[in-house]
Amino acid sequence: MVTSRDVAQLAGVSQMTVSRVLQGSDKVAAATRERVLAAMQEAGYRPHAAARTMRTRRTSTVGVVVADITNPFYPQLLEAVGQALEAACQRMVLWNAPDPGGSSALQALDEGTVDGLIFTTITEGSDQLADALQRGEPIVLLHRGLDSLDCDQVTTDNLTGGRAVADYLVATGHTRIGFLQGPELTSTARHRERGFRDRLAELGHPLAAELTGQGGFAHDLARSAMRELLAQDDPPTAVFCANDLTALGAVDGAVSMGRRVPEDVWVIGYDDIAMASWDSYDITTVRQPIAEMARAAVHLLLERVDDRSLPPRKEQFPSELVVRSSTARTEVR
Amino acid sequence: MVTSRDVAQLAGVSQMTVSRVLQGSDKVAAATRERVLAAMQEAGYRPHAAARTMRTRRTSTVGVVVADITNPFYPQLLEAVGQALEAACQRMVLWNAPDPGGSSALQALDEGTVDGLIFTTITEGSDQLADALQRGEPIVLLHRGLDSLDCDQVTTDNLTGGRAVADYLVATGHTRIGFLQGPELTSTARHRERGFRDRLAELGHPLAAELTGQGGFAHDLARSAMRELLAQDDPPTAVFCANDLTALGAVDGAVSMGRRVPEDVWVIGYDDIAMASWDSYDITTVRQPIAEMARAAVHLLLERVDDRSLPPRKEQFPSELVVRSSTARTEVR
Repeated sequence: MVTSRDVAQLAGVSQMTVSRVLQGSDKVAAATRERVLAAMQEAGYRPHAAARTMRTRRTSTVGVVVADITNPFYPQLLEAVGQALEAACQRMVLWNAPDPGGSSALQALDEGTVDGLIFTTITEGSDQLADALQRGEPIVLLHRGLDSLDCDQVTTDNLTGGRAVADYLVATGHTRIGFLQGPELTSTARHRERGFRDRLAELGHPLAAELTGQGGFAHDLARSAMRELLAQDDPPTAVFCANDLTALGAVDGAVSMGRRVPEDVWVIGYDDIAMASWDSYDITTVRQPIAEMARAAVHLLLERVDDRSLPPRKEQFPSELVVRSSTARTEVR
Repeated sequence: MVTSRDVAQLAGVSQMTVSRVLQGSDKVAAATRERVLAAMQEAGYRPHAAARTMRTRRTSTVGVVVADITNPFYPQLLEAVGQALEAACQRMVLWNAPDPGGSSALQALDEGTVDGLIFTTITEGSDQLADALQRGEPIVLLHRGLDSLDCDQVTTDNLTGGRAVADYLVATGHTRIGFLQGPELTSTARHRERGFRDRLAELGHPLAAELTGQGGFAHDLARSAMRELLAQDDPPTAVFCANDLTALGAVDGAVSMGRRVPEDVWVIGYDDIAMASWDSYDITTVRQPIAEMARAAVHLLLERVDDRSLPPRKEQFPSELVVRSSTARTEVR
């Protein structure tokens, strides 16, 4: 690797002069500066990024932390975040790790190799992250929030989304209504369930314990849970799933038993990932505005990188029920 | 942020002494060193990662470059690469960018913020990458290779995989055989097509131009191309798709026209992503050993980080036809 010493030798100046040129000092004569710059070019010298980072304290790189990259929702969200960052001339680096607290991403932030972090899969109980947030580090929670923390968060209104599904199923005449839950430590699963459960009770159709299963935000778990629901003597006529991946698994569970969707059972998801609208599934779902959420998160983060003293901000986007053929194109029995 | 100046003040020593302690110099008395270390701890001082990188020249971080993160193959591959890196105590950072040459990842390598790079979606014509490879930079091509370059590459035998599909379809009696191509600039699409096309010709059933469409490794393009093939007066009875995402689109194109798979048309994919085996699709495909390939790529890369003078190595894994209900559970007409 070419060093500043090599450049100094080639230009016939001291290393201090090379250093001054790198720092843009006005103590170097124009002719000398040009000689040094020419020598840098000739030698192929690149001021080490590490050194440059130390001077400017900005890397123009944002880290994104995700735990479930094989859930198709996250690649879509990451692509949207990447586009929003690119539009802001920022690079994206990604940590995909089972640890939702992103300890190695926090380390990178601590060490200055990223300017800020966007967490997309946070769960309750990440103490290290809570500490970093309380120190005012530039961190934004996207998609999943933390009820217990006052920090920048961009989410959708999952409570209202869950309520809308309850309204829809009761209005279309269902009384045997099932539910496949998501992991309890995630805000999305908790809020969707609370909205759905509370509204069903208000409407006089409280959720029955025997019609509730754990889908775990995973295709295989949802498929098994759906098969258990459908194997009952009096199975549900409609099943709300806490996210689209769960709904895909639920449809496949039904298909694996020779049941038809929606003739035998309705299935509803949440998120509106691309696959939800593919012909083989065509799933009714609650849409999250993924691109808008990604842009909002990037905007909040870059503002906080510039000014850590800003008060915490919470942006919540509305959700929207999208009806497709996994429910509506048939009459309720 | 706490600086070495703060530490020096707290410890009652010069900044030079703090610097010497950081560098592990033996010119500092033991008692002084302990005072400085205690001051660092008290002040919460962390030697800036950038500075540390300059000293050790290793970041234990590997960059991975991908262009198609919404193709479910890549999240699966990335998860496998992440696990292999974790087992080797390396961190993974990811660049998801439409530029398959990964110019910003190459910049990070150049600047020393990653030790090496794994490219998963390389295409012909990436001059910048070719330059970096010829300089002997620690770079491994995974999944997609470059015929024209002598460098570390981990791929599967896509030629043989394509040939196996031709053998299977001819052996099961098909004569109207269709094909949905992938992007010509990718080695995977080229090799799969060449194997399939050459073997069909050898078997006396050369691929007909009117039964060939462009699936573009994308669900929506594949769906449209399949609809065009099936709208013909004499449509194909079987369609080989250059990857699984294309096959999912092909099935959905058939479904959208009320055609049944496999009763009306057989569909075959390539990769064996998780979705290929989901009940709603259950697609016959050619399996790539994703986890083994990921481990091999990480192994080659870490060896090259240690020793750039190693000769270029090409590892090619075998492929395997996996028969599911998108083809075999029915008789050929």
